[in-house]
Amino acid sequence: MTEPTIDHIYEAYERIRPYIHRTPVITCSSLDSRVGAEVFLKCENLQKVGAFKFRGACNAVFSLTEEQAKHGVATHSSGNHAQALALAARMRGIPAFIVMPNTAPQVKKDAVAGYGGMITYCEPTLEARQTTLAVVAQDTGAEIVHPYNDYKVIVGAGTAAMELLEDVPDIDVVIAPVGGGGLISGTAIAMTECSSRIRVLAAEPELADDAYRSMKAGYIIPSVDPGTIADGLLSSLGELTFPIIKNRVEAIVTVSENGILEGMKYIWERAKIIIEPSAAVPIGLLFEKKIDLEGLRVGVILSGGNLDLDRLPWL
Amino acid sequence: MTEPTIDHIYEAYERIRPYIHRTPVITCSSLDSRVGAEVFLKCENLQKVGAFKFRGACNAVFSLTEEQAKHGVATHSSGNHAQALALAARMRGIPAFIVMPNTAPQVKKDAVAGYGGMITYCEPTLEARQTTLAVVAQDTGAEIVHPYNDYKVIVGAGTAAMELLEDVPDIDVVIAPVGGGGLISGTAIAMTECSSRIRVLAAEPELADDAYRSMKAGYIIPSVDPGTIADGLLSSLGELTFPIIKNRVEAIVTVSENGILEGMKYIWERAKIIIEPSAAVPIGLLFEKKIDLEGLRVGVILSGGNLDLDRLPWL
Repeated sequence: MTEPTIDHIYEAYERIRPYIHRTPVITCSSLDSRVGAEVFLKCENLQKVGAFKFRGACNAVFSLTEEQAKHGVATHSSGNHAQALALAARMRGIPAFIVMPNTAPQVKKDAVAGYGGMITYCEPTLEARQTTLAVVAQDTGAEIVHPYNDYKVIVGAGTAAMELLEDVPDIDVVIAPVGGGGLISGTAIAMTECSSRIRVLAAEPELADDAYRSMKAGYIIPSVDPGTIADGLLSSLGELTFPIIKNRVEAIVTVSENGILEGMKYIWERAKIIIEPSAAVPIGLLFEKKIDLEGLRVGVILSGGNLDLDRLPWL
Repeated sequence: MTEPTIDHIYEAYERIRPYIHRTPVITCSSLDSRVGAEVFLKCENLQKVGAFKFRGACNAVFSLTEEQAKHGVATHSSGNHAQALALAARMRGIPAFIVMPNTAPQVKKDAVAGYGGMITYCEPTLEARQTTLAVVAQDTGAEIVHPYNDYKVIVGAGTAAMELLEDVPDIDVVIAPVGGGGLISGTAIAMTECSSRIRVLAAEPELADDAYRSMKAGYIIPSVDPGTIADGLLSSLGELTFPIIKNRVEAIVTVSENGILEGMKYIWERAKIIIEPSAAVPIGLLFEKKIDLEGLRVGVILSGGNLDLDRLPWL
C-alpha cells in the first residue's frame, strides 16, 4: 500500500463510525484569553477506552477479512493501544492477545482484562516484548496490529481530525502530540489534503525529543530512556510515520515538563475534563509560545484521558 | 408571575443562547452495564463557569430592563451562583456585587474576582449574609438575584433539560440533584410539560435530606448543618421551588456519602470528565438502586465541575 490519502480516511470513517463515539469539540474562553488564540479542543479523551487509539484499532480490526480475523489479533502494548485493540476485537467477536511487561501497573492490566483481552506477560524490555509477541502470534495465528506503524491505524487516527474539521471548517492550525507518530500522521493527512492552508504542528516533550531530532537529522533517531511524564509518547517514530510527518508537518515543537504539567492542570481546572499528560503537551506548546499563533483558530487533538487518579502528578 | 411553564423556558433559551455553551450529552458503556440502564450525561460541568448556574444567572441578568440593570446585580453566595452572576453581569456590561463569607476558600474568592465580581465579605452566618446583602443592595441600587428562589433563575436552569430532550427525545427518566431546588424545578417543568410520560427524580444526599423530609411533611423543613461532601446542595428549598417539586417530581431519593464519592470517582475514571460531589449524587442514586430503572433511558443533569483539584475527596 502506498502512502494513504484523504480517501482512506473517509473509508476508515465509514467503517468505524458505528463503533466509535463522535467526540465533542469544546471551547474555553479563559484558555483563549491566556494563549491569545481561539482554541478548539477535540476531546478524544472522551473516546471509547479514553483515547484516540480506539479509532485506529477499530479500523485495523474491522478491515480484516473473515479469514484473517478468525484467529484474532495481537499486539504488545502496556498502554491505550492494548485496551483499544481488546475492545475493538471484542466488538468484532474475535480474541485479542496482548503482550504486556510484567511491570505494567495493575490498573492497566485490569483495564485490558476488563475489555476481554488475553494477556501474556513478559520481561519489561522491547526485545522481550517483540519476541513474546512473535511467539504468541505464531501459536495463535492472530494478526499483529502495530500501535502506530500501520496505515490502517494511521488513517483511523486521522478520522478525529476529519471530524474536527467538519465541526470547525475555518480552522487555521491543528496541533497533536507526537510519540510513535500515528496520531500526528493521520491528522496531517486529513488536514493537508483538505486544505493547503491548514498548518499542522506536532507537540513533543523536550525529554522525549526523538522526533524533533529525527526531523533535523533526516533519519529516524530512536527514543532512548525518555524521562517525560507524558507516558504515551515514549515510542520512536516508525518507517511509515516518519515520511508522512516529514512531508506534511510544519514543525515539531518541544515542550518542557513544566509546560506539560501546567497545561494538564489548566485543562482539568478550566475545561473540566480529564486529560492524561501526553494530551497536555499541545496545551504546553500553546502556553510556551515558541510559535506565534496569535489570533488564529487553533484545533488541538486531546489524545486521551487515562491515568491513575490516585496518583496525580501535582500532588 | 404565576408558576412558569415550558413557554418561559423556551423564552429563556432564546434569551441566553448567545451567551451559554450548548453542552454535550455523553454516554459511557461501562456505566450503562453497571447500572443496567442507558444513561445520558448532560454535561453542565462543561458549561461556562463550570456549572448549570450560569444559565439561570444569565436569564436573570438579561431579563432586566435597562433601567433595572443600570446599577448592576447583587447576591450572596460562596459557590457557583456567585461566579455565574459575576460573568453574566460582565457580559451585559454591568457590575455584580457579591457578598461572601470571609471564610470562603481562596480559590472561590479568586474565581469570583476573576469574573469581575465585586466582593463584600461578611461573617459566615446566614443572617450576616442577608443583612450585608441588603446593605449592599441599598447602597448600590443593584437588583438582587437569588440563587434559586427566582423564576427567572429556575427557567434558566430548565434550559439544560430542554437541550437534553432535543438530543435524546425518547428519554424515560431524568435525574437531577436537589439543594435549594432551582435545577430540579426547572428540569421538572421542562420534562413534564414536554411529555407526561417522562419521569423526574431528585437525588439528595442522605446527610442533607431536608427536601426529602419537606416532601414527606408537606411543608419546607430547613436544612440545618448538613454534613455532606456535596457542598452545592446545602441550601433549603424555597417557597417558589417547593410547590414545583411537589407537583412535578416523582420522588426525592436520598444517597449515601459513599454512593456520592463512588459515583464521582467513577465518572472521573470512566467518563473522563470532572464533576463536583454535588453532580455525583444522581450517579450515586443509580448505583444504590433504590428505584428500579432497569432497561430505561435515563438522563442525568451533571450540575457542575468546580472543586479544589489539590484536595480530592478520595486522597
